[in-house]
Formats: sequence, structure tokens, C-alpha cells
Amino acid sequence: MLPPLLQAALDCFVEHGYHGTTIRTVAARAKLSVPGLYHHYASKQALLVAIVQFAMKDLLIRSEDAVAEAGSSVEEQFRLLIECLALFHAHRSELAFIAASEIRSLEGESRTAHIKSRDKQQQMVDDIINQGMREGNFDAEHPKDTSRAIVTMCTGIAQWYRRDGELSPEELALRYANIARMTLGVGPGSRRESVFTAPIVGDAPIVVN
Amino acid sequence: MLPPLLQAALDCFVEHGYHGTTIRTVAARAKLSVPGLYHHYASKQALLVAIVQFAMKDLLIRSEDAVAEAGSSVEEQFRLLIECLALFHAHRSELAFIAASEIRSLEGESRTAHIKSRDKQQQMVDDIINQGMREGNFDAEHPKDTSRAIVTMCTGIAQWYRRDGELSPEELALRYANIARMTLGVGPGSRRESVFTAPIVGDAPIVVN
Repeated sequence: MLPPLLQAALDCFVEHGYHGTTIRTVAARAKLSVPGLYHHYASKQALLVAIVQFAMKDLLIRSEDAVAEAGSSVEEQFRLLIECLALFHAHRSELAFIAASEIRSLEGESRTAHIKSRDKQQQMVDDIINQGMREGNFDAEHPKDTSRAIVTMCTGIAQWYRRDGELSPEELALRYANIARMTLGVGPGSRRESVFTAPIVGDAPIVVN
Repeated sequence: MLPPLLQAALDCFVEHGYHGTTIRTVAARAKLSVPGLYHHYASKQALLVAIVQFAMKDLLIRSEDAVAEAGSSVEEQFRLLIECLALFHAHRSELAFIAASEIRSLEGESRTAHIKSRDKQQQMVDDIINQGMREGNFDAEHPKDTSRAIVTMCTGIAQWYRRDGELSPEELALRYANIARMTLGVGPGSRRESVFTAPIVGDAPIVVN
């Protein structure tokens, strides 16, 4: 969980945007005095940097865990990584929204570091897709574009997902993993599964609902 | 094209966010006095509303044109509509970025109207996918989720696309239409095309590069 002070800043950024938020507003929301807040963070920029670093670190650790949990199967690595991406952007939609829309407000090295983290996240998906292409599990005309489209559709969840909607984050994540598999020629209705791959007991594709 | 005054406001919103922009900054960028600007637009909110309305109207007209141009084939309607969505978000990335990220800054009825326009855009894609499902051209486990994922991956282009990158908007749009087709079990490597559909001369799938 985001520490309470950063959560207060995040709430303000979501409501008013970074540039529309003042240190005074954040302090009031966090029930601190302005000097009290400055004791913890030297500036509004420091608050944004801490929020964005928290978000990217959390996402990268979860992503690495997902891939590790999947074992050696590239299809399983892909499925768990996409589920992880979708889950994160549904569960932490406000955090992800600010991390994506306020990149322009990050200054200097913080901005470079953030873009590097995002590239690393994208690279994880690229690598798995490339591996799957080499092993003949995946089939994409332009794997790099497909990979970016998949990551974008997952990060985009943060822009529309509402907890009181029809799907839980977990249901949504299963569906997105299947949609992502489709873009690689794997999944419901695709040639690869219906023609070549007989489902194996204990390793059957997860069917949602 | 966006009228020059709205373009000046858009540039400011992209740089500083809506809440971080003042009427004075917009006036300076537009080379107008503050009273001169107020002569055209009553408030900063009126500028945002005009920008967002321009964006959505432009996108909806282009989308309707794309579907009309496609004729009666649901696959062709889908392909041209997705190309149109991708093209718009690549060509007009800044406009689309503000229309997506500053919904929170729209007030009252303008906000409702904007969300209605976005829903209408989504509904166009939903309708074509549903039609294709009925006709047996498309194959999706959860068509509504697939439709949203497709629209999201296209609107997301506005967040990363750079004109000085590898692909022209047109090349990108062709690739995105193919990726979108894959999610519906149609396209390179999918069962439907490789097993059922023999390419017809004059109606062959467009191959990119």
C-alpha cells in the first residue's frame, strides 16, 4: 500500500492534476501543517517522484514474480505477466493513471528514470513474445507492435476501470490475458489451439465464466 | 485543423495540464490580450470544452465516413474503422491526449456530453463486432471486453506515438487493424483465414510492408 502521505498527494493529483495541486492542499488532506509536510518531502516534485517510483517498483516486482511463478512455459509466462499487468492497472487505477498522465510533470533525471522503468516493463513483454515466436508458440506479423498494443490495452484499464462495474479485477485480468493471446494467434478460436494443440489434463486453458 | 486560438490553449494544456494553465498563459501564447481572449471564450473551461468537442466531433465524423466507405462487408467496416481510430490518435495525439486525460476537468453537462460521445464511439465498434459475431465472421469469447480492449489500444497510441519514430501514422494504422482482427480470430495466422477463407483477387487482405 502507498504510505498515507503519498496517498493524500495522489488523491490531490487525481482531482486537480499535478500543476493544479499545491503543497498546502496536500498538507490539508494529509492533516499535516505545511512545515510538517516539508519535513518528509522537500517539494511537490518530490511527492510526485515518490509516487511514480512506488508505482513502477511495485509493478516490476509483481511482473518478475508472475514470470517466475509461470516456470519454463513461455505461454504460461505470457499469460501470468499479462494477468499481472491487467490486475495492477485495475487494482491501482489511480496510481497508474497519474504515473501515465503526469510523465510530462516529472523533471530531469526522475523523468528519464521513469521512462526507463516503463521501457523495462515493455521489454519484459517483448522478450517473452520473441521467445514464443522462436519456439513457434506465437504467431505475429509485427511482434514489437503487437507487444506495445497489448501493454497499452492493459495500462489503459486504469483510465476506465471502476470497482463497482461488472467485472472484478481478477475476472478482467483473465479476459485480457485471453484477448492478448488472441493477438498472437493463440487462444479461443485460433488455429494453433483448435488444430495443433490438444488440451492436456491439468494443463487445460483457463476458461472464464 | 484546430482554430489557432484553441491550438494555443491545447499547447498550454499539454505542457502544464488544465489546472496548471492560466488564461494569461493562453493569451500570451495566442498573441492576444487577456480581454481579447475573453472576447472569444468566456473562460478557461470554455476553451477546454471547445477543444474536446472539436476532437470528438472530428473523430465521430471520420469514423462514420470510414464505415460508410467500407460498404456492406462487416470485416471491411471493422478494418477501416480501426484504421481510422489509430490514424486519428497518431495524427492528433496531443488533442486526443487532452481529451482523454482532462475528462476530470470538464464540468457538469460538458462532462456528461463528452462521456456520451466516447460511449458512442465505443458503441460503433461494439455494433460492428456484434454484427460480425452474428454473421460468423468474428470469434470472441467476450466481445464487449474485446471491443473495449481494441478501442483502448488505439486511443493509447496518443500517449506514446511520435512522428519521428519508425512508423508513419498510415503504417501504424494498418498494423493496428491487423492486430485488432487477430483478437477476433481473423487475420494472419488465424484459423478463419488460413482454413476457411481463400483470398479473392481484388479483395485480398492488405499486407503491410
